[in-house]
Amino acid sequence: MSVKTADIVDSVRAMTWTGKSLRLLDQRYLPAEEKYVDLHTAVGVAEAVRNMVVRGAPAIGVTAAYGVVLAAKKAYQQDRYRWRELVETDLVILAAARPTAVNLAWALARMRDRFRFVEEDPVPVLLNEAAAIHREDIDANHRMGELGAAIIADCLNVLTHCNTGSLATGGYGTALGVIRTAFARGTLVSVFVNETRPWLQGSRLTAWECRQEQIPVTVIADSAAGALMQQGKVDAVVVGADRIAANGDVANKIGTYSLAVAARHHGLKFIVVAPCSTIDRETSCGGDIPIEDRGGGEITEFAGQNIAPAGLAAWNPVFDITPASLVDVLVTEKGVIDQPDSCKIEALFSQ
Amino acid sequence: MSVKTADIVDSVRAMTWTGKSLRLLDQRYLPAEEKYVDLHTAVGVAEAVRNMVVRGAPAIGVTAAYGVVLAAKKAYQQDRYRWRELVETDLVILAAARPTAVNLAWALARMRDRFRFVEEDPVPVLLNEAAAIHREDIDANHRMGELGAAIIADCLNVLTHCNTGSLATGGYGTALGVIRTAFARGTLVSVFVNETRPWLQGSRLTAWECRQEQIPVTVIADSAAGALMQQGKVDAVVVGADRIAANGDVANKIGTYSLAVAARHHGLKFIVVAPCSTIDRETSCGGDIPIEDRGGGEITEFAGQNIAPAGLAAWNPVFDITPASLVDVLVTEKGVIDQPDSCKIEALFSQ
Repeated sequence: MSVKTADIVDSVRAMTWTGKSLRLLDQRYLPAEEKYVDLHTAVGVAEAVRNMVVRGAPAIGVTAAYGVVLAAKKAYQQDRYRWRELVETDLVILAAARPTAVNLAWALARMRDRFRFVEEDPVPVLLNEAAAIHREDIDANHRMGELGAAIIADCLNVLTHCNTGSLATGGYGTALGVIRTAFARGTLVSVFVNETRPWLQGSRLTAWECRQEQIPVTVIADSAAGALMQQGKVDAVVVGADRIAANGDVANKIGTYSLAVAARHHGLKFIVVAPCSTIDRETSCGGDIPIEDRGGGEITEFAGQNIAPAGLAAWNPVFDITPASLVDVLVTEKGVIDQPDSCKIEALFSQ
Repeated sequence: MSVKTADIVDSVRAMTWTGKSLRLLDQRYLPAEEKYVDLHTAVGVAEAVRNMVVRGAPAIGVTAAYGVVLAAKKAYQQDRYRWRELVETDLVILAAARPTAVNLAWALARMRDRFRFVEEDPVPVLLNEAAAIHREDIDANHRMGELGAAIIADCLNVLTHCNTGSLATGGYGTALGVIRTAFARGTLVSVFVNETRPWLQGSRLTAWECRQEQIPVTVIADSAAGALMQQGKVDAVVVGADRIAANGDVANKIGTYSLAVAARHHGLKFIVVAPCSTIDRETSCGGDIPIEDRGGGEITEFAGQNIAPAGLAAWNPVFDITPASLVDVLVTEKGVIDQPDSCKIEALFSQ
């Protein structure tokens, strides 16, 4: 049970297949520690996704695909005739791990399609499929990097939010992939990143990734983004997405909407970078996207210590909806859309 | 050396005169601990202001006024003939404690005016003046509470930023004073407060103060303010100010500008509440207001622990400028101004 991963490992990887387990870089401990966890069951994978050992919509999709391999392995060992039936429980558990990123459901559906007609041991076939999902995600990111870098070719400094790099994807990154490519081309000079409360994906993860690539990075309090734009310190805003509705509305990390409003106010281009696996054609608009609430503790506590009066109520939706009308450009691996809407998005899929 | 403070102590107080020293509630430890520090020198007061033992523009003004009492006491003990000369060094040190809040300079100028013609021991006169500044600030806050509550009489829920309550003023509060009055009148149901990174004045201090008064309070990540407005959860935004330029531009806690932009986008009233001591008629516009940068550590560290890669660059201006054009209402103790501008503000002072 092995798969060639050499071709898909070219920098930091959120997940790797070890030959018999899924190894995740535990993002809860970054940047202080680089700890890894080896998962041998789909239930363990679901728990890791729920607890944000791994996060980021494309990364969750790839992780879930490997989770299906583990589920099928267990089911086939239990009963080589009834494994297709037995695997269903694990698929439900994986699907329920987190609600907002559609890449999770997308990857599960693709894996399910693949095992529908398998008669022998499903593991080799599914492992190939998971590796294909992984590799295609990286390829898509490289493609989006090229397309997006052309769009910000005249930008010296951009602002990004959350983490959309190797850690959030199969590898390379979506919005951060665009930033990487633009920096490699020499057009981009530096990146500003929101610290991204409450989980600090910006100051913990994006800053760490930029360090690896020696991209000059400056972190700001999320609320300073308006002042940053007002002072002309950035030329565009580039973000990822957790789910894009059929009409182009974007669910992404809480704070994305505030950034889009501020970018529009300042006449700055607001660019969303996401693979087609993030587009949910079944959901007509942003209002129909389920938004995860992770509870107040993420805001009122830090490292297990209260930073607010005990029992303080907190409102902690971890995603928000940016209407398509505030998105200037949507970059996908299949092409770039200006002012996205239902027709233009549908056209992406009928190419 | 004593002053009647009973009449100005009616709830939480950031500062009290003990009879021989200035006692400050150390806001760095709230809400976990209610620790107090007793200061016997102006240098100690300046250091406490710089280190944010006490913060909030009006509170800094009142604190500085008591600092002048301590400075004069020491100078008079040193040399009862040259005390007026000797006190100057301490006044310079007090003035330099923090740059943005103009109430500091305002209080020092008023104290200086008072001691200009004193021939005897200046301490009783100056203590009376400091107590008057303190009492007048509380009175102004009560008056602004009345005026502002009328403006938000039809608002069930409002959003505020940072801390503008008793802890940020002589007592009662500016924006939070308005919220208190509206809640006491039964028109306001609850308040949302931004946690206010990096120093967490919202989740630490405003939440704590609301608890004292049993005002229902919900904390949010600063970046969630846009989503909060988008979902119709608040009916207005009410904030304080650290300095208001002659043209009505407002310097206030970083993030205020982003809120003003978002409020305008959603058609929500953006209300600034500040006493006239916060208006700086000598500074023509916001661009001329000095903005304090407190260094990156406030963003990259928490409780002495790195939360970002070591040495990460951070941009940490702790105030921003909201142009007058985004301010719908300015509430002062001398009256309310809709769409503030130079003429309307100047008229306040010629009443």
